[in-house]
Amino acid sequence: MTTEARPLAGKDRRTILTYGTFDLFHVGHVRLLRRLAELGDRLIVACSTDEFNALKGKQTAIPFAHRVEVLEACKHVDLVIPEERWEQKRQDIVDHKVNLFAMGDDWAGRFDDLRDLCDVLYLPRTQNVSTTELKELIQTMRQRPPAAE
Amino acid sequence: MTTEARPLAGKDRRTILTYGTFDLFHVGHVRLLRRLAELGDRLIVACSTDEFNALKGKQTAIPFAHRVEVLEACKHVDLVIPEERWEQKRQDIVDHKVNLFAMGDDWAGRFDDLRDLCDVLYLPRTQNVSTTELKELIQTMRQRPPAAE
Repeated sequence: MTTEARPLAGKDRRTILTYGTFDLFHVGHVRLLRRLAELGDRLIVACSTDEFNALKGKQTAIPFAHRVEVLEACKHVDLVIPEERWEQKRQDIVDHKVNLFAMGDDWAGRFDDLRDLCDVLYLPRTQNVSTTELKELIQTMRQRPPAAE
Repeated sequence: MTTEARPLAGKDRRTILTYGTFDLFHVGHVRLLRRLAELGDRLIVACSTDEFNALKGKQTAIPFAHRVEVLEACKHVDLVIPEERWEQKRQDIVDHKVNLFAMGDDWAGRFDDLRDLCDVLYLPRTQNVSTTELKELIQTMRQRPPAAE
């Protein structure tokens, strides 16, 4: 017998699933992902594709492939999958043996119908840190000439 | 005896040190940090403080504490320290027993004087991915009304 930590077998492992765009990766994303990861053993992030965002009339600063690569480099994230359509959630939950579906509380109540498949939780978002506010800040930043270095 | 991987003892561990601002954390940062981490066993990132940036006439979109928190969440980074002045590099190399000082090749040749203390390397940057270009893109993005979701 050993007391070394080992990966849990599939049936004992608690898998969390969340969905998002993760444009301009920032501290609000990090804190949400950290809190999600702490709820289980494996965090899966479904990242919206550029095509899906276009359907929603949403434009990102960062293309899908780069948003995925940044998410994959986050120590709280175990797997990144594409989010391509609204209807995929039930299948994702089954395919990845998800125990907990969790989103920021800007989505509170919106996914309660998934409770027949797994737990559903809405987490508080970090106040005053959002991609939208960040873009607005950058758009209003005064452009200074770069200093000689 | 065990064959489990264990942290190397101090004298056997190869420590890498780099410096940067890491504003608007993006795929160019991730790729640079990954390649740096692959060069050794422990990657230390010195992140420029807001005060140091002000001295250089540089303004970031993201404050120091948040840039640090995002770096600390990157799986390639082992330790983040503050960069507060130009002259601290020699002391950092000694204090943290650094074996390799490495920067993007936009700094090529600028730190060759540190070669009496450790190895010095300049790595190619990811083409077409930079914080400056990202800010310019966001500043020119057409604002669309958000779609109902």
